[in-house]
Amino acid sequence: MVKRYLDLVSLDRALEILGEAFQSRARTERVPIEAAAGRVTAAPIFARFSVPAIHISAMDGIAVRSADTLGAGESRPIVLPDAARVNTGNIVPPEYDAVVMIEDVWLDDGAYTIRKAVAPWQHVRPVGEDIGESEMILPSLHLIRPHELGALASYGVTEVEALALSAGLVPTGSELVPAGARPGPGQAVESNTLMAAAHLRALGVEARRYGIVPDEPDQIRTAVLAGVRDNDILIVSAGSSAGTRDYAASVIAELGEVLVHGVAIKPAKPVIVGKIQGKPVIGLPGYPLAAFTVLREIVTPLVARYGFPIPGVESVDAVLTTTLNSEIGTDEFVLLSAGRIGGRWVAVPQSRGAGVQMSAVRANAVMTIPAAKEGVEAGEIVRARLTVPRRQAGEAVLVTGSHDPCLDRLADLVRPGGVEIHSTHIGSMGGLLTLKKRQCHAAPMHLLSPDGEYNIPFLQKYLPGEDLVLVCVAEREQGLISRGGATLDDLPTLRYANRQKGSGTRLLLDYLLKERGIEPALIRGYDREFTTHLGVALAVRSGEADCGMGVYSAARALGLEFAPVTTERYELAVHADTLDDPRVRTCVDAIDSDAFRQTLLRMGGYRISETGVRRVLP
Amino acid sequence: MVKRYLDLVSLDRALEILGEAFQSRARTERVPIEAAAGRVTAAPIFARFSVPAIHISAMDGIAVRSADTLGAGESRPIVLPDAARVNTGNIVPPEYDAVVMIEDVWLDDGAYTIRKAVAPWQHVRPVGEDIGESEMILPSLHLIRPHELGALASYGVTEVEALALSAGLVPTGSELVPAGARPGPGQAVESNTLMAAAHLRALGVEARRYGIVPDEPDQIRTAVLAGVRDNDILIVSAGSSAGTRDYAASVIAELGEVLVHGVAIKPAKPVIVGKIQGKPVIGLPGYPLAAFTVLREIVTPLVARYGFPIPGVESVDAVLTTTLNSEIGTDEFVLLSAGRIGGRWVAVPQSRGAGVQMSAVRANAVMTIPAAKEGVEAGEIVRARLTVPRRQAGEAVLVTGSHDPCLDRLADLVRPGGVEIHSTHIGSMGGLLTLKKRQCHAAPMHLLSPDGEYNIPFLQKYLPGEDLVLVCVAEREQGLISRGGATLDDLPTLRYANRQKGSGTRLLLDYLLKERGIEPALIRGYDREFTTHLGVALAVRSGEADCGMGVYSAARALGLEFAPVTTERYELAVHADTLDDPRVRTCVDAIDSDAFRQTLLRMGGYRISETGVRRVLP
Repeated sequence: MVKRYLDLVSLDRALEILGEAFQSRARTERVPIEAAAGRVTAAPIFARFSVPAIHISAMDGIAVRSADTLGAGESRPIVLPDAARVNTGNIVPPEYDAVVMIEDVWLDDGAYTIRKAVAPWQHVRPVGEDIGESEMILPSLHLIRPHELGALASYGVTEVEALALSAGLVPTGSELVPAGARPGPGQAVESNTLMAAAHLRALGVEARRYGIVPDEPDQIRTAVLAGVRDNDILIVSAGSSAGTRDYAASVIAELGEVLVHGVAIKPAKPVIVGKIQGKPVIGLPGYPLAAFTVLREIVTPLVARYGFPIPGVESVDAVLTTTLNSEIGTDEFVLLSAGRIGGRWVAVPQSRGAGVQMSAVRANAVMTIPAAKEGVEAGEIVRARLTVPRRQAGEAVLVTGSHDPCLDRLADLVRPGGVEIHSTHIGSMGGLLTLKKRQCHAAPMHLLSPDGEYNIPFLQKYLPGEDLVLVCVAEREQGLISRGGATLDDLPTLRYANRQKGSGTRLLLDYLLKERGIEPALIRGYDREFTTHLGVALAVRSGEADCGMGVYSAARALGLEFAPVTTERYELAVHADTLDDPRVRTCVDAIDSDAFRQTLLRMGGYRISETGVRRVLP
Repeated sequence: MVKRYLDLVSLDRALEILGEAFQSRARTERVPIEAAAGRVTAAPIFARFSVPAIHISAMDGIAVRSADTLGAGESRPIVLPDAARVNTGNIVPPEYDAVVMIEDVWLDDGAYTIRKAVAPWQHVRPVGEDIGESEMILPSLHLIRPHELGALASYGVTEVEALALSAGLVPTGSELVPAGARPGPGQAVESNTLMAAAHLRALGVEARRYGIVPDEPDQIRTAVLAGVRDNDILIVSAGSSAGTRDYAASVIAELGEVLVHGVAIKPAKPVIVGKIQGKPVIGLPGYPLAAFTVLREIVTPLVARYGFPIPGVESVDAVLTTTLNSEIGTDEFVLLSAGRIGGRWVAVPQSRGAGVQMSAVRANAVMTIPAAKEGVEAGEIVRARLTVPRRQAGEAVLVTGSHDPCLDRLADLVRPGGVEIHSTHIGSMGGLLTLKKRQCHAAPMHLLSPDGEYNIPFLQKYLPGEDLVLVCVAEREQGLISRGGATLDDLPTLRYANRQKGSGTRLLLDYLLKERGIEPALIRGYDREFTTHLGVALAVRSGEADCGMGVYSAARALGLEFAPVTTERYELAVHADTLDDPRVRTCVDAIDSDAFRQTLLRMGGYRISETGVRRVLP
C-alpha cells in the first residue's frame, strides 16, 4: 500500500503549539511621522513641548483686562483705550487676562468699545490646554490613525518607534511559472506568494518575495536558509503535502524542527508549522484556497502575537441556503455569499473545491463547520464571518438560478449604484426553489413549458398564490456549439457536453430529444454535467466533446461554431415586494438601460424584449 | 462694529452643492498586480485563459479509465497494468477519465491494484473548473482584496486599470513652522496637511504636500494655481475664516468661484468649497479638530463621489454621560470615548475645544448634535459613530475621576493585554457620581474625610448599599509645586494655581486652609481652575502663578520645586462585580505587577501600598 499520511492536530492545538514555541517580540524601527499612519507604536510617545506654549487667543478679537470690563452693558458701554487687537492663535500679552470676540467690539475713533462684561480667561487658551510637556500622547501597541499624525507633529514628535516584522516568501514547485508567463499544460502561475505578500502587507508586515524554486531538495534548502536569515518569519509555499515531490517538511526538519505537519482543517490539511533558528517557518499548501485558509487562520494569529492589530472581523447570523456535508474530525471552512433579504441575512455556499480561487473572489464571508459536526442542514442559522465591511455585504443582491454571461455585465453596470450582484449558478429550477424559500433576491430562469410558454407556468405551479414579477433580461438564442458546425440532426453521432439537472438548457435538450423521439441514453456524454455555458464551450474546444447546447456569446468567446436552435425568454423572477428594495430596483433599472442594451448587442445572440416586466398572476 | 460674518449653509446643502458642481470622474492608471491590493478597478477584468487549461488531477494518485474499475471491491481487487501515476496538478492524459487517490492504491510488482470502483471524472479537475477564458473576474469599482491578486495572476492578468485621484495640500499661515522645528511664542507646527495627507492616502488618494505659504495673497495665489494644475483636487489649509489675514476665499474667488463659504457645523464653520478650472478646491479651517471635521464630513464624501469606497463606519447606541448644550442651527460634532459597561455602551464626551487635538487622539467615536436640537441631556441614548473597529472600542476601559500621571503609564502597561484605558479627568467627586450611575468602569479618587480616612466614607455616603471595591494604585505625595520652594505658610502671599471643584486636590487645599484658619477668599487665584496636576505645574512654570498643589511627578517633569504636604491613598473604586470583567481584571493585575511598581519608583513621589484591594462595607 502506497499510503502516506499526516499526523493531524486540531487548529486550536496548532495555534497553542505556535504560542508555546515563539515568545514573539517584534523588532522595532524609527519611522518618520510622515510615514507613520497605520504603524503600531513600540513604546509610549510623550509630548516634547506644551501646546499652546503660552496663553493664546481662542478668537479673533481684542485682549482685555477682565477687571476693566466690569459693569459694561447695553446701556453702559465701556471704552477700552489700551486693549490689543488679537487674531486667533496670537499671544495674549501678559497684562491681559481675557479676549472679547470681534463681533462684540465697536471701533470708535481708534478706541474699542464693548457692551458686555467678560469673565477672567474668557476666550483665552491657557498654556498646555491641549497637552502639557512630558504628557503621554500615545501608549505602546497603538495603531496610529491619520489624524494622530497631526497631533504628534504639533507636540514636537518627528519620528516614532514602531513595530517591525518581515516575512520572507519562498515559492516552490517545478510546475510554476511567474505571473505574466502563460502556463503550459500542467503548469500554473505562481500566485500564492503574491496573495500572501498582499495579505501580510495589509497586516502591517513587510513582505519579501523570492524567486520560484523547483522541487529539488538542495535548492529548497538554500532558499529556506536565505529566507530565514533575512526575515523574522518564513513562509514556504507548497510542497507541504506528503506527495512524492513534497520536500518542504523534510527540509525544515533537517534545518530545524517540524512542530506540526497536518492540521485537521479543510481546505489546508497539509500545513507545516516549523522552527528554524528560533524563527517560525510556515509551509503553505499549494491549492490557492488552502493557502488562503492558512494565511487567515494560522498566519494572521501568528502576526497578532507580535503585537500587530488585526482588522476586526464582523459576523452575521445567516440562514444557510444549501445542506453541507462535512467530515467529522475536521474543521471545514466554507466560503459564502451573504446578503440581506427582508429582515434577515442569507448565506449561499460557494464551490468548496480548494482549486477554485474564484470562490474567494465571489465570496464576502466564510463559515466554519466544526470538527464535531457532520454537516449543516439547509435552513440552519450559521455564523458568517464577513470578509468585507458589513455595509458592503449589505449591498449584495443574491441572484441564484440559471447562468448567463450577461449577468456578469449587469453586475458591472450596477457597481456605480453601490450594488454588488452575487450570482450563483444552480440552474433555473434550483433558483425557482430558492426564491420560494426567499433565499435569493432574484432567480434568473428560462423554463419552457410543454405548451411553449416561458417561466410563468412554472412559477404558478411551484410558487402558487405568491405575488411575483418577471423582469426580462433578454430574449436570447440558444444553439448548438461545436467545432465543426453540428446541427441537431447530428446529435446521435456526436459526443455531447450536457448541462446539470434542473438547468433550463438541459430541459431544452430533453424537450428537443422528445420532439425528435430520441432516447437520452443514446446521446454520448448525456450524463457528464457542466454548470455554465462557457463550461460546455470549453469542453467542446478542448475536444472532450463534439458539441453542446449554450448561448451564442459563449461560442463566440471561444471562437466556436454556433447553430441557432431556439429563442427563449431569460427572465429574473422576483417577489413583487422585493422591487421596493433600492438595490433590486437599481438592478431592474440597469436592465432597462441603454448601456445594458448596448452591451447585449456587442455580446451578440440577444434580442431586447418588448415586454420588460410582467406580473405573474397567481 | 467690526463684525465679519459668513453666509452659512447646512452641511447637507454644502454636500448637495458639491455634488451639483462636480460630475466627478476619477482618472485611471495601469497598476501592476503586485501593487494592486487596495486599489479600485476602473473597468471589469476578464480571464486571459482558462484554469485549469486542461483536465488535471485533483489528488496524488493514479489516472485510470473508470470503465476498467467496474466491479472492483474488497474481495475482488482489480489490477490495472497501464494506469499512470499522477500528482496533484498533473495532466490527466486524454486516455484516462478518473483518478484514484494514492491511499486507495496497492503497488504490487510494478502494477497498481485497487479495491474500489470509481465513477467517471472522479478527482479530475476539468478544464475551466476555476474559471473559463473570457469570464469576468472582477467588475468595475471593486476594491481589490489581497487574495484576489492570486486569482488575477492565475488567470493571466498582470496589470489592472485602477482609479486614480490626486490631491494637492497647500498649507498657509505666517505663524506656521514645519514639523521638527520648535515653534516660538505664537507659532505652531504645520500639522494639518500631514493629517490630511494620511487621511487621503487611507482612502486611496495620492496626496502631495506643498511647502508652507505665508499669509500673502500673491504667494497664496501662486501656490493655489500650481496645486490646481498638478492635482485633481486642491486643499488649502487655513486662512479660510473671515479674519484680517484670511485670504483663501478671496484668492479662490479671484481664480475661480467660491461655492460655499461657511457651513453650519461646529467645529469647522469657516470652511470653503470652491472651484478652479473645474476642479474642487476645499479651504480647511486652521484649528486641527475643525480641519479633521472637514476631512471627515466633506472631503471624504467628495472622494467617495469619484468611486473610491469609503471604509464602513460602525455605530453604537450609547448612554451619554454628560449634558451637552449646543447652538440651534448648527450641527455639532462631539468626540467621545465609548466603552461597554455591563450590557450597554456608554459614551463620555471629550473636550469640545477645536484646538484640543488630544480629544481626537483620545476619542474612539463621534456623535452629532443635530442643528434642530439645543443639546443632549446626560443619560440620553446617542448614536456614536466609531472611529476604531467595533472590537477595539469594546476593549475600552472607561476610567473617570481624579487624574494622576501614572494612569497613562498604566494605560501603556495594559496594551499587550488588548485593553485600552480611556481616562477622563473630572475630579474624584465627579468620578464617584459617574460610578454611581455605572457610567465608568473605575473611578480613581483620593478623597480625605474629616476623620482622616480616604475614600471609603465617601463611597459609603454616596453609594450606600453597593458592593464596591477599592484598588490602591499607589500612596502618593501631594505637595506644593513652586519655582522658589514655597511652603504652606507662604500661601497667603503668593499667587496660587487651584484645581477644579470636586477634585480631591482642591478638597485637600480646603482642608489645609481650614486647619490653618485661612479664608479661601484670601488666596489669590483660588477661583482660577486647572484640571490636571501638570496644568498646575505649567501655570507655575509659565509664571502665571507662584505655586499650586500637585503630585511630585508633575513638578519633576517640569523641573520645579516640590514641598511635600501629605501622603494620600490614590485608589480606583469599582463595583465588585466589575472585577469579573477580563478587561478590568487586566488593569487590576497590571497595578499589582512589578513593572508598574518599577514605573512608579522611576516617576518618584509614590509609595506602593501594603493593602492592594479593599472591600467597601456597605
